[in-house]
Amino acid sequence: MKLNPLFPTIETLGINTDLYELTMSAVYFQSGHAGDWATFELFTRKLPPTRSFLVAAGLEQALHYITHVGFSSDTISYLRKLPVFSRTDPAFFDYLHRFRFSGDVHAVPEGTVLFENEPILQVSAPIIEAQVLETFLISTINFQTMVASKAARLRLAAHDKQVIDFGSRRAHTPQAGVQAARASFIGGCNGTSNVLAGYEMGIPVYGTMAHSFVQFFGDELESFRRFHDAFPDHSILLVDTYDSLQGVRKALQIGGKLAGVRLDSGDLLELAVKTRELLDQNHRKEARIVASGNLDEERVLSFSIADAPIDAYGVGTDLVVSRDAPTCDLVYKLVEVISGGNIQPRFKASEGKGTVPCRKQIFRQREGDFFKRDVVGRWDEDANGEPLLKKWVQRGRIIRELPSLVASKEYARQQLESLPGFLKLLHTTEVYPVEYSQKLLAIQRELEEQYA
Amino acid sequence: MKLNPLFPTIETLGINTDLYELTMSAVYFQSGHAGDWATFELFTRKLPPTRSFLVAAGLEQALHYITHVGFSSDTISYLRKLPVFSRTDPAFFDYLHRFRFSGDVHAVPEGTVLFENEPILQVSAPIIEAQVLETFLISTINFQTMVASKAARLRLAAHDKQVIDFGSRRAHTPQAGVQAARASFIGGCNGTSNVLAGYEMGIPVYGTMAHSFVQFFGDELESFRRFHDAFPDHSILLVDTYDSLQGVRKALQIGGKLAGVRLDSGDLLELAVKTRELLDQNHRKEARIVASGNLDEERVLSFSIADAPIDAYGVGTDLVVSRDAPTCDLVYKLVEVISGGNIQPRFKASEGKGTVPCRKQIFRQREGDFFKRDVVGRWDEDANGEPLLKKWVQRGRIIRELPSLVASKEYARQQLESLPGFLKLLHTTEVYPVEYSQKLLAIQRELEEQYA
Repeated sequence: MKLNPLFPTIETLGINTDLYELTMSAVYFQSGHAGDWATFELFTRKLPPTRSFLVAAGLEQALHYITHVGFSSDTISYLRKLPVFSRTDPAFFDYLHRFRFSGDVHAVPEGTVLFENEPILQVSAPIIEAQVLETFLISTINFQTMVASKAARLRLAAHDKQVIDFGSRRAHTPQAGVQAARASFIGGCNGTSNVLAGYEMGIPVYGTMAHSFVQFFGDELESFRRFHDAFPDHSILLVDTYDSLQGVRKALQIGGKLAGVRLDSGDLLELAVKTRELLDQNHRKEARIVASGNLDEERVLSFSIADAPIDAYGVGTDLVVSRDAPTCDLVYKLVEVISGGNIQPRFKASEGKGTVPCRKQIFRQREGDFFKRDVVGRWDEDANGEPLLKKWVQRGRIIRELPSLVASKEYARQQLESLPGFLKLLHTTEVYPVEYSQKLLAIQRELEEQYA
Repeated sequence: MKLNPLFPTIETLGINTDLYELTMSAVYFQSGHAGDWATFELFTRKLPPTRSFLVAAGLEQALHYITHVGFSSDTISYLRKLPVFSRTDPAFFDYLHRFRFSGDVHAVPEGTVLFENEPILQVSAPIIEAQVLETFLISTINFQTMVASKAARLRLAAHDKQVIDFGSRRAHTPQAGVQAARASFIGGCNGTSNVLAGYEMGIPVYGTMAHSFVQFFGDELESFRRFHDAFPDHSILLVDTYDSLQGVRKALQIGGKLAGVRLDSGDLLELAVKTRELLDQNHRKEARIVASGNLDEERVLSFSIADAPIDAYGVGTDLVVSRDAPTCDLVYKLVEVISGGNIQPRFKASEGKGTVPCRKQIFRQREGDFFKRDVVGRWDEDANGEPLLKKWVQRGRIIRELPSLVASKEYARQQLESLPGFLKLLHTTEVYPVEYSQKLLAIQRELEEQYA
């Protein structure tokens, strides 16, 4: 019996896209535009209501895709059989067969804090190449940016306590689990339970034990003993299978060093206080308390404010699905066309969904240690502030070394430190100032008059 | 430069899991329990507040995983270097090297409607094999079931109109986009924009055109002409780049058959009515109207109630992230241990997170054409009603032919038809009756007394 595979493969990267990317490409090809270049920008028009900033992530996977995407013979055969392509010029499929990305990519480094209308990534390439990338790029960068942004909120809420990604099982597919581990590490988590993320990317892996382990042995104390015998320096014992404080008392019966206990249900604040007392009274000052169970940044902040004796938070579902904002609504919009050496700005006027023309640069201005104001201008403007977008791919080849994951994480930490104080609150009605440059606005007005 | 890969591969299936699954496994191994069998059940303790039923999906990918999972030498080398495993018996890693799934799997067929506390899948296997599967199984089945359930609500809301999955770009990674296409097809969508889902699984693929296409040509009419020339029978023209009704008038200037137009912004109901008038006045009765743009089942139902002249809905973000319920909160719980031929029921008492012991069967009772009541009993009970859980894997081998995707979709359709009327509403306070059998409750009481 043939089962459908678990993962898309490198052979299918080209068709891992929306059908209209390919039908539009056929038209570009047949109407002689395959040689025209275009620039697309990836950004969000509006932050989710519960976000006042984003933390960029996903560039590394995006660049891997961009430098490997192509169309295998099998996938081209499939396309040729689709009724919609029945009249399409066979030369288009030959073109797909030769397809390799040959354009340029600019992006902000992973870990960069971003706001509304600020491009996270720009693709300048022959129009078909730039168009086909849309679906895959958004689904990779939108997701990782969403998770990194959520992790940053958890980081702010947890103060100096550890936050561990425990969310793999609730991520939207196994691939999302791995990418969530990566993105949450950049955004501020200390590690993950996902072993594959540790193997592939060197992210520190953490784990305690499951209820099933305690249930398997039937006797709680025996299960603790067995685990502690095997991992004398690494045993975080899960104490809530039957009764949390009774569980702590049983953990105290184990001889030798106790790495810690995990609380996973009930009133975590009250239980943490009583657990700390029990541990301290019994000379287990070294034992740490890990808390988990439907945690999010609101609950974590409430524990921080109460000065709860919790050393580490395991956060699952709410982190990896970003429950209060399960998308950043990133869009990928055409902003200019380069035809015959001529750069033509492009815009869109749709109600509530308009776009501003031209390839852009973000200029970030500081006041002392803090971000003060961003200006989004044309890429070649000489504006005040640090330009955030850098070139990573030139004519299809990677030209800039990607920072290590640890470096991206450290960069994100510095970025969060530089946020104005009001943006470090989980809830704020204040908005960070982002303005378009006079030059961009003038170009847009001109185009609008042209189309009015 | 080495870039991190896009997709987990078959070589890494074993470590695509949480660390604690492997530490617990080491303890089972070292304490001589590797030969003991255990049964785990996958279910939800509580439906999301905005769901009154689930539609099961993801079994095919789960079975693929179960019959392929193992540990490569490279991944074992990584594990051996982790500090937590520094004292672990090397024989455990030899065991991982030989690891293949050798147990049994029961599950409800994909498309089955399910409720709280009803097992969607059961694994009975040597304890380590059953334990290691947890993370991957949940992340596959939780996600697909979530999307299939959301799609079923869209199906109910759309009446006889088409619903197409347009969500790939907002899915949580490209893999989620493909699996969302699959799950939404089972749940009631007519097709998807995801070409890879069409290629891999034969799901009908649909597409229109993007704003970037209109912007590229600058002139809207020219962009329509070019597209129509290339796809004379398949051109759904996107009319809202500048002004929707002006866009429709331009679409009418195209000679020949017009497949349809897409409205993507503004007041969709009002625009659909005016668009239909324009199309009909200009003898384009055959032209269809596709609506898209932040749609969910509430908006679709409002269009159905208003008898909007919309022929197809393209639904994106809200479908693939299931925004109002971005998880089904599936859990995977130990319910019995089989040691030395002895079946020992297991339960958990944690506050608000208790579990009921024993491997179960769901018995569904009908009244006429409709589901009336489910009884969840022990698997070997002789209760009234249709037993829903079937055996798919026996001693590691698939023994039951999986229905085709189209058959699963048809089965889901029949299941939805059989729902009591009150469950077909998007909002209801009534709850479908699910009861535990007397036998199960008696066993649980006995265990509780034992542990009290």
